[in-house]
Amino acid sequence: MANTAVVYFSGYGHTQRMAEFVAQGAQGTLIEIDADGNITDAQWDVLDAADAIIMGSPTYMGMVAWQFKKFADLSSKRWFAGKWQGKVAGGFTISGHLSGDKLSTIQYFMTLAMQHGMVWVGQAEMGDGTINRLGSNSGVMAQVGNTEPAAAIPEGDLATAKTYGARVAAMAAKLAV
Amino acid sequence: MANTAVVYFSGYGHTQRMAEFVAQGAQGTLIEIDADGNITDAQWDVLDAADAIIMGSPTYMGMVAWQFKKFADLSSKRWFAGKWQGKVAGGFTISGHLSGDKLSTIQYFMTLAMQHGMVWVGQAEMGDGTINRLGSNSGVMAQVGNTEPAAAIPEGDLATAKTYGARVAAMAAKLAV
Amino acid sequence: MANTAVVYFSGYGHTQRMAEFVAQGAQGTLIEIDADGNITDAQWDVLDAADAIIMGSPTYMGMVAWQFKKFADLSSKRWFAGKWQGKVAGGFTISGHLSGDKLSTIQYFMTLAMQHGMVWVGQAEMGDGTINRLGSNSGVMAQVGNTEPAAAIPEGDLATAKTYGARVAAMAAKLAV
Amino acid sequence: MANTAVVYFSGYGHTQRMAEFVAQGAQGTLIEIDADGNITDAQWDVLDAADAIIMGSPTYMGMVAWQFKKFADLSSKRWFAGKWQGKVAGGFTISGHLSGDKLSTIQYFMTLAMQHGMVWVGQAEMGDGTINRLGSNSGVMAQVGNTEPAAAIPEGDLATAKTYGARVAAMAAKLAV
Repeated sequence: MANTAVVYFSGYGHTQRMAEFVAQGAQGTLIEIDADGNITDAQWDVLDAADAIIMGSPTYMGMVAWQFKKFADLSSKRWFAGKWQGKVAGGFTISGHLSGDKLSTIQYFMTLAMQHGMVWVGQAEMGDGTINRLGSNSGVMAQVGNTEPAAAIPEGDLATAKTYGARVAAMAAKLAV
Repeated sequence: MANTAVVYFSGYGHTQRMAEFVAQGAQGTLIEIDADGNITDAQWDVLDAADAIIMGSPTYMGMVAWQFKKFADLSSKRWFAGKWQGKVAGGFTISGHLSGDKLSTIQYFMTLAMQHGMVWVGQAEMGDGTINRLGSNSGVMAQVGNTEPAAAIPEGDLATAKTYGARVAAMAAKLAV
Repeated sequence: MANTAVVYFSGYGHTQRMAEFVAQGAQGTLIEIDADGNITDAQWDVLDAADAIIMGSPTYMGMVAWQFKKFADLSSKRWFAGKWQGKVAGGFTISGHLSGDKLSTIQYFMTLAMQHGMVWVGQAEMGDGTINRLGSNSGVMAQVGNTEPAAAIPEGDLATAKTYGARVAAMAAKLAV
Repeated sequence: MANTAVVYFSGYGHTQRMAEFVAQGAQGTLIEIDADGNITDAQWDVLDAADAIIMGSPTYMGMVAWQFKKFADLSSKRWFAGKWQGKVAGGFTISGHLSGDKLSTIQYFMTLAMQHGMVWVGQAEMGDGTINRLGSNSGVMAQVGNTEPAAAIPEGDLATAKTYGARVAAMAAKLAV
């Protein structure tokens, strides 16, 4: 069984709800980045010990929220030490538009994972209108109207998140041997 | 009045329909890239004389169709001579999924335009569920189910294409002075 | 004469030095984002009044520094109001590696500019080993070793920054008419 | 031992030389895409049977050569059938400029790999001026002057290619169990 951590920033609860489903699929640990872009030392230790790290952020102004980027910048200490080399990585995002710039956010997760020497696992379910409704491959994309609560996220988007968590964890289990 | 050309490849007619609306908005000339990725010498001349070039392609396997890329590679002669420097550029794409990798296609149009020293004009309408339904800013994104004909492209997507053509042409008119 | 603002975050002075040359070329105003990712109300006013906004950030962990991203997130108020629509935009970055992920940073500047409805002007000088030494088109890329001071940035990189500032300002002057 | 295939297009021999070093590191099979963008049925079979597929192309006009894109479009048959799901993927590129748009090419390799449901392995060596001279993480970047022959590719770039091939093959060996 792989040891998976889901590290995310959530502005209004939508990304958190997605994170919960990803973590459920991965049987992983949730780590929330706070409003100042920080996590605790104990949480950094959880990340260091993980076989897989799945990253989540809303797409704000065409990219991860600044709090997530601060987390990424702070992860440079791990990068210098090569601590996350060979771990598995994945990512998910949510925003108010059907497409918008969500791919930009996921591309950044990939770029960050590559700098750390991680291995990237994408979203492999074919879109069928429910599962992978938005047709994303590089990671998970979800969407809900800008004024809608997290409870309004479509079931299929949540199911996609859960299936994705399981896929990432399964790959991590193989690589961790 | 700016002189605008809309150069596109269309596999099954969907991109062509989008191109027609873009050209209508821009009062521009349509140039279709053929199934072998070629255009005629006369068509290259039209592009050389244009104030603005708007590029269109379906998103196939996460990027412009190969025929469009062949056109881009052939445009290297113009690049060496700096012939398209300062022209205005724009782009649009369509695919079967709501999001998918359409941003990847538009990012490539931008990269190509930048190599040519062109000036990029994006899609500026706020998404309202009809106009800019998919929430794209960098260029125009449209979508219709994989088995549906070009006639099934939503009216709002076509209207977005037309409005976009007009915006690009208006910017080109200013820069061409 | 166009009214140009150069808004940047600098961690160790390298981006600031680049910003100074860009501003010199554009005859523009420098606006430094502080260590907490903030600028003053008066500086927001300068941006609102500008014909062109040129963005600068080091590339940290594959993307703009988090302070720049915080600035971008805070700019969402301008986005809602459409305040920056039609302005000209440009960008530059510097990092310790010759290539690395500098293109990722510039792609983000472009994505942000497009969300604001701005018009993107790239770097149009052909690389000759001195000017545009790194061969960047979408914006300006500069490089200096990780342990070197800002004073060690190659002359050609600085000259590229200055030439670029002038180009962006010239385009803005045309569009501002 | 993983079964690795290196599929590439080479315009003037530079990408081919890189491919040879990647294949040497991976103890893999070379598959050259021809000048029309085709490979043979037997070569498609080799790809279908591989544990890892490493992709190579020069960066032309800001992206993979059109011949590589044609190969990618033709791979849609494999995508429909999910034939490459779970395989390991990697990529490399070379161009005349130090940075340029090489990241754009590697981003596309990643996008394509994700559509196929593959797992991406990047370049994990820290840049030291020789190995990973250009500071690329997402894949391998190499560079040699536009008028220089393949024999002039720096030793360090070739060594980086070889080390990368070995890394990808090692990851594939773990995942293939």
